[in-house]
Amino acid sequence: MKFYFLTLFPEMIHAYFKESLMEKGLKEGIIDYEVLNIRDFSQDKHKRVDDYPFGGGAGMVMTPQPIIDALKSIPEREKYPVIYLSSGGSTYKQKTSSDLSAYPGLILICGRYEGIDQRIIDAYVDYELSVGDYILTGGELAALIICDSVCRHLKGYLGNPESLEDESFNENLLEYPQYTRPREFEGMQVPEILLSGNHGQIKEWRLKQSIEKTVQIRPDLYKKYLSKNKH
Amino acid sequence: MKFYFLTLFPEMIHAYFKESLMEKGLKEGIIDYEVLNIRDFSQDKHKRVDDYPFGGGAGMVMTPQPIIDALKSIPEREKYPVIYLSSGGSTYKQKTSSDLSAYPGLILICGRYEGIDQRIIDAYVDYELSVGDYILTGGELAALIICDSVCRHLKGYLGNPESLEDESFNENLLEYPQYTRPREFEGMQVPEILLSGNHGQIKEWRLKQSIEKTVQIRPDLYKKYLSKNKH
Repeated sequence: MKFYFLTLFPEMIHAYFKESLMEKGLKEGIIDYEVLNIRDFSQDKHKRVDDYPFGGGAGMVMTPQPIIDALKSIPEREKYPVIYLSSGGSTYKQKTSSDLSAYPGLILICGRYEGIDQRIIDAYVDYELSVGDYILTGGELAALIICDSVCRHLKGYLGNPESLEDESFNENLLEYPQYTRPREFEGMQVPEILLSGNHGQIKEWRLKQSIEKTVQIRPDLYKKYLSKNKH
Repeated sequence: MKFYFLTLFPEMIHAYFKESLMEKGLKEGIIDYEVLNIRDFSQDKHKRVDDYPFGGGAGMVMTPQPIIDALKSIPEREKYPVIYLSSGGSTYKQKTSSDLSAYPGLILICGRYEGIDQRIIDAYVDYELSVGDYILTGGELAALIICDSVCRHLKGYLGNPESLEDESFNENLLEYPQYTRPREFEGMQVPEILLSGNHGQIKEWRLKQSIEKTVQIRPDLYKKYLSKNKH
């Protein structure tokens, strides 16, 4: 699966792909990526990529020409969906990551400033996505979050395919607490049940812990769990 | 404001602080950061930082000793809250970013693998936070998201203090569309109203656009908007 990033800060993206799991994915040919520096596509003599918003208001807006020309330079652009990361998009969820992983590639536009010209979105963007209800300075971290979570669905990317199955959100429950060695640390013990070897009881205990945690801190998620597990 | 990152991938963090706005904040003394490589604190002869989970299951769990020793090495650890980034945490929102910006510093633990030993969380963590309902390979991107969104509240960090006020989520509405030059691009026009110079009508048009967009793609947010704007 190939990822294109359109950004003004290529180094942020490159640094992420030097991270161990990403690097392994690249080496094994499971993933590939390319970074297009939006500024390189500017036809402005000063290589400007932004301008004042029509109608007034604070901040600068990214102009159509450099972003659209960057998009047009991508050979696979007809086959890959174009995603614009913005706080104004639909909420990105685990289900979205699984859906997106079915594409052969993604094109991710990372905006800066007050946003990008709406005409880019209207004519070229397939998905406007938000990774959460908070404001970021740019779309780079959001684009990397999408890339990271999508990659996890690709065959061979994670060492252990079980890992993905076990995880939160697949069942609308938060994960149960995990413990590892040593059995005692600073006076704190590992729960007795986990040392029992009784897998049925351990499973039951873990489910109970997951439910209690979800009820306490994510009642919204617990409601979904209940409605899916009704008989 | 100072940020400590506990991670196994220091380069990912450093790359982010080379980004322009962050670099400017560092130079002007508005922000400061330090990265602690968890592996450097491991007392294991092979510098291991993880082990199998008690009770069975896929993946590895990060052991208490290296993380706790890294925490204890931080001189300000009594004054700064300790945050663990995990998909099992409370949902991080714009309001949380504003609350956290009141602290003189934050300590951010970036986990990997299947998570960290629960005893670390029980005894040392003040906030367990999730940046969204999706699974990431590690906490680094989430920690950077918190850092980025918190910094925006710091005095002098953003060039234009108006920018923050204008933004989504403060009013539970998504942002209105933005347009900049040229007036026509590939046959697409800037809406006439934005060229009118009538600021009252522009404000009204933008509010209408925000409401329509929010109703359409974020009905959950629109409900909040309605309940806050009832008379």
